[in-house]
Amino acid sequence: MHSAPPATLTSAPAAPPLDTVLARATAAAERIRTSSPADRARLLTVLADALDAAAGRLIPVAHRETHLPEARLTGELARTTFQCRLFADRLATGALDDVRIDHADPDWPMGARPDIRRTTVPLGPVLVFAAGNFPFAFGVLGGDTVSALAAGCSVVVKAHPGHPALSRLTASVAAAALADAGAAPDLLQLIEGERDGADAVRDHRIKAVGFTGSTRGGHQLFQLAAGRPDPIPFYGELGSTNPVVVTPAGWAERGADIADGFAASFTLGSGQFCTQPGVVFVPDVDAFLAAMPPLVAGPMLDARTATGYATALDDLAAQDGVRVAARTPGGDGLPDVAVLRTTTEAVRTTPSLISTEVFGPASLLVEYGTLDEVEEVLGDFEGTLTGTVQGGHALDEDGLRMLDALTRHAGRVIWNEWPTGVTVSDAQQHGGPWPASTAPTTTSVGTAAVHRFRRPVAFQNVPERGLPPAVRDRR
Amino acid sequence: MHSAPPATLTSAPAAPPLDTVLARATAAAERIRTSSPADRARLLTVLADALDAAAGRLIPVAHRETHLPEARLTGELARTTFQCRLFADRLATGALDDVRIDHADPDWPMGARPDIRRTTVPLGPVLVFAAGNFPFAFGVLGGDTVSALAAGCSVVVKAHPGHPALSRLTASVAAAALADAGAAPDLLQLIEGERDGADAVRDHRIKAVGFTGSTRGGHQLFQLAAGRPDPIPFYGELGSTNPVVVTPAGWAERGADIADGFAASFTLGSGQFCTQPGVVFVPDVDAFLAAMPPLVAGPMLDARTATGYATALDDLAAQDGVRVAARTPGGDGLPDVAVLRTTTEAVRTTPSLISTEVFGPASLLVEYGTLDEVEEVLGDFEGTLTGTVQGGHALDEDGLRMLDALTRHAGRVIWNEWPTGVTVSDAQQHGGPWPASTAPTTTSVGTAAVHRFRRPVAFQNVPERGLPPAVRDRR
Repeated sequence: MHSAPPATLTSAPAAPPLDTVLARATAAAERIRTSSPADRARLLTVLADALDAAAGRLIPVAHRETHLPEARLTGELARTTFQCRLFADRLATGALDDVRIDHADPDWPMGARPDIRRTTVPLGPVLVFAAGNFPFAFGVLGGDTVSALAAGCSVVVKAHPGHPALSRLTASVAAAALADAGAAPDLLQLIEGERDGADAVRDHRIKAVGFTGSTRGGHQLFQLAAGRPDPIPFYGELGSTNPVVVTPAGWAERGADIADGFAASFTLGSGQFCTQPGVVFVPDVDAFLAAMPPLVAGPMLDARTATGYATALDDLAAQDGVRVAARTPGGDGLPDVAVLRTTTEAVRTTPSLISTEVFGPASLLVEYGTLDEVEEVLGDFEGTLTGTVQGGHALDEDGLRMLDALTRHAGRVIWNEWPTGVTVSDAQQHGGPWPASTAPTTTSVGTAAVHRFRRPVAFQNVPERGLPPAVRDRR
Repeated sequence: MHSAPPATLTSAPAAPPLDTVLARATAAAERIRTSSPADRARLLTVLADALDAAAGRLIPVAHRETHLPEARLTGELARTTFQCRLFADRLATGALDDVRIDHADPDWPMGARPDIRRTTVPLGPVLVFAAGNFPFAFGVLGGDTVSALAAGCSVVVKAHPGHPALSRLTASVAAAALADAGAAPDLLQLIEGERDGADAVRDHRIKAVGFTGSTRGGHQLFQLAAGRPDPIPFYGELGSTNPVVVTPAGWAERGADIADGFAASFTLGSGQFCTQPGVVFVPDVDAFLAAMPPLVAGPMLDARTATGYATALDDLAAQDGVRVAARTPGGDGLPDVAVLRTTTEAVRTTPSLISTEVFGPASLLVEYGTLDEVEEVLGDFEGTLTGTVQGGHALDEDGLRMLDALTRHAGRVIWNEWPTGVTVSDAQQHGGPWPASTAPTTTSVGTAAVHRFRRPVAFQNVPERGLPPAVRDRR
């Protein structure tokens, strides 16, 4: 997930100083720490209902600040409240409990074993850096916030500077809903500005950080978290080029569909998606270009993102061995849509070509002679959120080989579908080796995201009433 | 888990250079990457058998280098091979698979959902820093190595300088066993020396680090891992003081047992255990001291550890408000056994008193007036591997309150038992908030340790034969 470089933003005059925010977050964490999963399920449901009820106020503000179409924003808000309710449901059914019970065993081979019951407890106050490109789904009440609340943590959200009014409105809707539900409104607080964000990462009261944004910004904040006297987990979702391999059979059997699907996927949301297919290996670039439909894209999130896109596009196009193959001028405030082309040979010389993310409606076609070449250049590739194989109607040896090659680098591996459009479910995985994620063993989307914000505790020989309910004999 | 500060050690002349080791580890990782859990179960069993068969050669070398009694070493070796077999069993039964399957659902509320199946894949070559105090259980074939192999990763072990001959012998026994089993012997390689260890942490071919040792050394290596251009997970088990609270009822009802148990636990292994109870809150220090049996301890691991202990003990004893309450001179190469005393009032002034680990047979008694005082001083406490409540025969309100207070800081919470003697099982948890661990959401002991070295991958719309066996419809 990529976003515009943050800018310093003056906080609203009434906003309390950071120290007060963090003191309140600590107190709120203490209150929610021992809440039951059912309590937290109720809170998430209340938040979802409040957000849905405020749609008429939220969407116009989001549209004004992000230029995203209302239909897209309506869908994204629905996704966001669905996400709240999915976590609520899984909390209520116990699916997010992480329970391991070893009863006492005098005959355990390494020596008598005591009764040990392991479950998880919340980490404490979590700091969330909201993203610019999904003002709802990765915003104030987005995935990181919802998974941290589901985990039983209080949350401080650093608002994205791209949509300050929406961030404040969302936070105030949430605060009112929490108050109505009898919960501490400080469970979810907003801060603004780069400096407060960085200071909060360094503050000992923050126990974990969730971040969605650029590789550069995320790397800096990661270093701050790691440089604390008491380092804390930093869950950053940074950059990704989401390679796609079109196999020979794919091209022969499904070429027109693939070209259409590609055009729709890389321009979706004006290419401002973390899972945008930014690199596509094809056997014949000219033929692929000829099969592509006309390219269109809507406006960029803001002027800074548009400028960043134009610069990144020019930089990539200026690399040795890279050419612009197609460029549809946007004009009238719209971005150019661009397809660039290169070859596996050029990538062999300059491996960074396939790991350079261009945040906007552009993608790089890489012409290959054989899949051996693709496998070779992928060998030096870094991490990515997704890897896609576009094969023929049936899975052949080429397809198997490319699925395996991409599994080494990607958090999600896709066959004959496109990486944009990330469903929220129990099996979803959104992450991957650096720089896709700073924490490759975790996910930032899907219900497994909750486990980032809880830590295991083993209870040894603890009587029934001293145990957390999840590990009692009678629950 | 604490260990002596490492010293530079010349590698054996025949040892290949680090670059060769890492190239081999990469090739070995590639070969084991797609192995089946059953294959890896077989390898771990072969390793366990080989280690058991070599006990007659291993234990004398271990005894010579660590001064640990042969009976202890025999028990520790049994624990180590049991650990191999436990992971092997759990691999064979599929218990370590981490599987989530969401079948396609056209009616999924946020929009039609594709078929998504999530399981995990190995991270790649893992670097393990072995500990000094458990030459087998946290040594070359210790918990980190076994969990990384179980995860399907190749392993490079940085030998602890306290037992170089044992490390080399263990590695050669393992290499021979792997060769006999037809596996790549480079699956497990040894390196020596501080410089190679640090260089390996920084090398892009290493994909994760496991470390057991001192807070200072671990913190430095953690910074190296975080400072890479491509940061990697660093799983460090560092320092811990393992606080114990003796409640008023505990003292009244079980005082003599508690004093006996404490004396045995804090002097076990000459206090060189990561879970040694280093801080004990008692209502009456004088009475507690009077109830304690005579104190004895065996030799320290080596001269450097002995010197480090003596210095740390003197430093703690010199702090304002701390006094030596009992000190049994060791003499004849044995360490002094010491009990220090202070008060909750002194801890309130100097909170570090209860987070200062003294690695050796010493412990600090903290006299309290009320449990309010204990709760207050624990409020500023950092992380710890274990927290123990010694209460009366039944769990009362005081006990509940102290269990809860310790759950905020500890990875394992114990009632009326002692923290030393860490069983290896499915529910075990060995870790905790910093500095107990650099990765509080993970464990370094127990079968859950395997998940540190695998990352999730979601397979979307992938046909049956392209899926890993664990997520196929027909397994």
